Amino acid sequence: MAASALLSELSGYGELQALADELRSASMAELFAQDPQRAVDFTLRAAGLQLDFSKHLLTRPAMTQLLELVERSGLQMDVAALFDGVHINNTEDRPALHTLLRASGSHGHEEKFAQVVAARALMKQWADSLNDGSRKGYSGATITDVVNIGIGGSDLGPRLVTEALKPYHGNVSCHYVANVDPADLQDTLLDLDPESTLFVVCSKSFRTEETLTNSLAARAWLLNAGAGESDLDKHFVAVTSNLQAAADFGIPADNCLPMWDWVGGRYSVWSAIGLSCAIAVGWDSFEEFLDGAAAMDEHFRSSAPGENAPLLLSLLELWYCNFLGAGNHVVLPYDNSLRRLPDFLQQLTMESNGKRVNADGKPLSYTTGPVLWGSAGTMGQHSFHQLLHQGTQLCPADFILPLTTHTGMSGQHRRLVANCLAQSRTLMVGRSREDAHAVLLQRGLTEQEARRLAPHMAMPGNRPSTVITMASVNPGSLGALLALYEHRTFCSARLWGINPFDQWGVELGKEIGTQILARLSGEPGSGPMDPATERLMAEWRDAQA
Amino acid sequence: MAASALLSELSGYGELQALADELRSASMAELFAQDPQRAVDFTLRAAGLQLDFSKHLLTRPAMTQLLELVERSGLQMDVAALFDGVHINNTEDRPALHTLLRASGSHGHEEKFAQVVAARALMKQWADSLNDGSRKGYSGATITDVVNIGIGGSDLGPRLVTEALKPYHGNVSCHYVANVDPADLQDTLLDLDPESTLFVVCSKSFRTEETLTNSLAARAWLLNAGAGESDLDKHFVAVTSNLQAAADFGIPADNCLPMWDWVGGRYSVWSAIGLSCAIAVGWDSFEEFLDGAAAMDEHFRSSAPGENAPLLLSLLELWYCNFLGAGNHVVLPYDNSLRRLPDFLQQLTMESNGKRVNADGKPLSYTTGPVLWGSAGTMGQHSFHQLLHQGTQLCPADFILPLTTHTGMSGQHRRLVANCLAQSRTLMVGRSREDAHAVLLQRGLTEQEARRLAPHMAMPGNRPSTVITMASVNPGSLGALLALYEHRTFCSARLWGINPFDQWGVELGKEIGTQILARLSGEPGSGPMDPATERLMAEWRDAQA
Repeated sequence: MAASALLSELSGYGELQALADELRSASMAELFAQDPQRAVDFTLRAAGLQLDFSKHLLTRPAMTQLLELVERSGLQMDVAALFDGVHINNTEDRPALHTLLRASGSHGHEEKFAQVVAARALMKQWADSLNDGSRKGYSGATITDVVNIGIGGSDLGPRLVTEALKPYHGNVSCHYVANVDPADLQDTLLDLDPESTLFVVCSKSFRTEETLTNSLAARAWLLNAGAGESDLDKHFVAVTSNLQAAADFGIPADNCLPMWDWVGGRYSVWSAIGLSCAIAVGWDSFEEFLDGAAAMDEHFRSSAPGENAPLLLSLLELWYCNFLGAGNHVVLPYDNSLRRLPDFLQQLTMESNGKRVNADGKPLSYTTGPVLWGSAGTMGQHSFHQLLHQGTQLCPADFILPLTTHTGMSGQHRRLVANCLAQSRTLMVGRSREDAHAVLLQRGLTEQEARRLAPHMAMPGNRPSTVITMASVNPGSLGALLALYEHRTFCSARLWGINPFDQWGVELGKEIGTQILARLSGEPGSGPMDPATERLMAEWRDAQA
Repeated sequence: MAASALLSELSGYGELQALADELRSASMAELFAQDPQRAVDFTLRAAGLQLDFSKHLLTRPAMTQLLELVERSGLQMDVAALFDGVHINNTEDRPALHTLLRASGSHGHEEKFAQVVAARALMKQWADSLNDGSRKGYSGATITDVVNIGIGGSDLGPRLVTEALKPYHGNVSCHYVANVDPADLQDTLLDLDPESTLFVVCSKSFRTEETLTNSLAARAWLLNAGAGESDLDKHFVAVTSNLQAAADFGIPADNCLPMWDWVGGRYSVWSAIGLSCAIAVGWDSFEEFLDGAAAMDEHFRSSAPGENAPLLLSLLELWYCNFLGAGNHVVLPYDNSLRRLPDFLQQLTMESNGKRVNADGKPLSYTTGPVLWGSAGTMGQHSFHQLLHQGTQLCPADFILPLTTHTGMSGQHRRLVANCLAQSRTLMVGRSREDAHAVLLQRGLTEQEARRLAPHMAMPGNRPSTVITMASVNPGSLGALLALYEHRTFCSARLWGINPFDQWGVELGKEIGTQILARLSGEPGSGPMDPATERLMAEWRDAQA
């Protein structure tokens, strides 16, 4: 990837800032009034999803200028480079070919695609044999439960997919353990039987501290229950590229599925890292999940910038972050099964784009990765929406709304839909002080009381939100949705000049963690640490007495 | 509460801004070097918790000036007014006496305290009779499962307490349903038996849309299973102040526990709204939980400002929000059982302080309530910590660290402790480009490669965090922790001039939701909505075909 100009150095950046300053206090109602086609034209279909980005502080001229910025940035070449397998992860000298994991053809990557096809066949074997009950544990009992042990990308994606696609579940219950806190594994194992439990250990290196620690504890649990060392192959599968470490642990090569250095952890749910969710939903559903993502890949690769859903979402991110001063982005899935989506997106976006130098190591003078947060609607309405509506922070929102329910309870689901549309509309329309005053008078308040309370009831409105709809939460729409955010993250990264595929910022914490663990364990460690850490270590020691 | 000056109008505000500008690029290592007592003096004990606030961009002179600002703000009088039952919730003309809910004496509120004592007796009766197995369902089967139906404050607090205190659980399993998405209730009921399930309906008004809808669905589930209308009293308890609506639903007055208008929803876990968690952990543990909060109340009420934990946390919030430009605050409990703490704190802080006018209705010219977010450590280390360490956002962090584990697995728990201390230290120390360069050379990279990669590996450091420790997660420490954040929220509110006890910003969304529901249901509604909402409603209609 060629050295590129910083976003703020591109021509047109200053003009965009001027436009943003004008639009900062724009009335969205007026934008709709001035542009009768806005509600229709500011929508987009992509791979079965529909995006409505009409409720934004954005006009056609601003969009045109943003698209010109895109052209000048060279992003289109980066998109081609991504799919072509160029070493776009330049600091680690690797391609980022997660799109190949869901492809139906090699796209010119014959060797890698052959590996993908082989891995899919292995995944299918495990998913099929577990769901048809033919896998047995050490005592001959059928395996009924799978515990995925992984953290970060080896946890968030598969966990989200498993929970989101509950109506598609087969005969195996899948559980997820990630935290090094021993309570996580212990609580999970409480309801499980060693005879019928299989562990899927997900760690590319087989060295991730949390995963290895939990796997060793799981191994001890099995051996304590009566399994022999030679039975471990009936209870452990590994997704790793370190076959030797897996073998040393007791997992033979036949029980290992591959991971490759051209797939980043946070982009790996499509690989064998997704084994646990493939087991949960069965292979056919998992393939539909891959197909949904592939459809979004095709949309992303082939759509013109102005009709490109991931790119438009990325431009909205830049617009609010860089031109309108937003430091955060809230994601509100109005579907309880998508409640883990914000957790997944936190890693995807913040680990990818929480960077302060560009891909060439040059310090950036502008804001990158916003804080992403959120929760399932309608939960947030009774919690943090007060701040969305009346706070002083600008919080651009994504509402995600499946239009039908799997529950059969369409009457109740309609309430969910109504609430979602109402929140998006409310953010936009607000309520003037005069309206609030009138409403309070209607409620029977005195003129004086109405005057006193109206400022509290008034809402500024003109707060931006996108609404992303889909027919239902199903494997295909979920795949498309996750790929949409993956590509949005990529576009934002490239426009900011960032390499979204490395994560150098997490290394030092691991090193210092090892040093502190040695100190807490009474082992000879490095020299003294800062006075605060020394005091806290002493406090911990006192508490062990 | 008297009209008060805006924070920015207090004398000393400008000086603080100047100090903050100086400290913005301070080296924390130097602050420690210059002040050998810093690690010790910048800590505080409060009600069994220990706060370490030494790793902040803060000096003794800045702290002194912040404390002078506090003095000029009149906050101390507000604290007294809070406990005295002054109508500090001025827009709703009510006191906010949640502290009375955990008090062991009336503190001058005889009548209210008598109500509290009576409610506690009712809670104890229900908790005892459920845990000793004497409550039976319509078929004579023992009640084994309780489903709490509530949302917002009627959900987040009890759910957090139930999950955090798992080692204290008795004989009843408690479940939580909140979302109007029918999948939430349906998924919960899947594993339950109508004969042995009791529902606790928590809604002050008995009109909350989500709660009423789910309660009606739960009622239908029971009746469909064979229970009669006259059996409903064996399966439903209500916490409400609307006895008539409860009776109309089928819940007799004997099964109703009270709620009062002097307790806000997000401050209500200490009231009968906490019934489900009192059932889960048993009455004695719930009383210890109340006692822990009462100890923090006493600390808050009686400690000098410079030694007052909630006040100091609040000053840190203001320091970063108002003087150093932070728009968010991240809370990282290093204990899996506290994973819901950020959800709880989101409501507490953002619904309380997500306001743009002061208590007198005057628009504020400064930032209030930051976005609060977070997750259980070590999960975030493999997700968003990249942004904490190397992103462009300032994210002040609270690490919450219980020093021992209930699991018995102290060796594994030590890793959790080491990781927590390491993250806090890493945020502070960072890594210079020169160090990164040297480390890369040690790893065998060429000079050229080391020079290229060092900027990616370098970490700025000097990023602030507080470490809050406690001996363990137990009822008392949890009570103290939640009360700590309640009072922190109150202090920030008062310094910003805000009334933290109302939530006018959530009303309009409910009204519009009702209008949209009518439209979606084909009922005559109000006139046409904005074009975007009209288009989305049409899209929903198309999807129902």
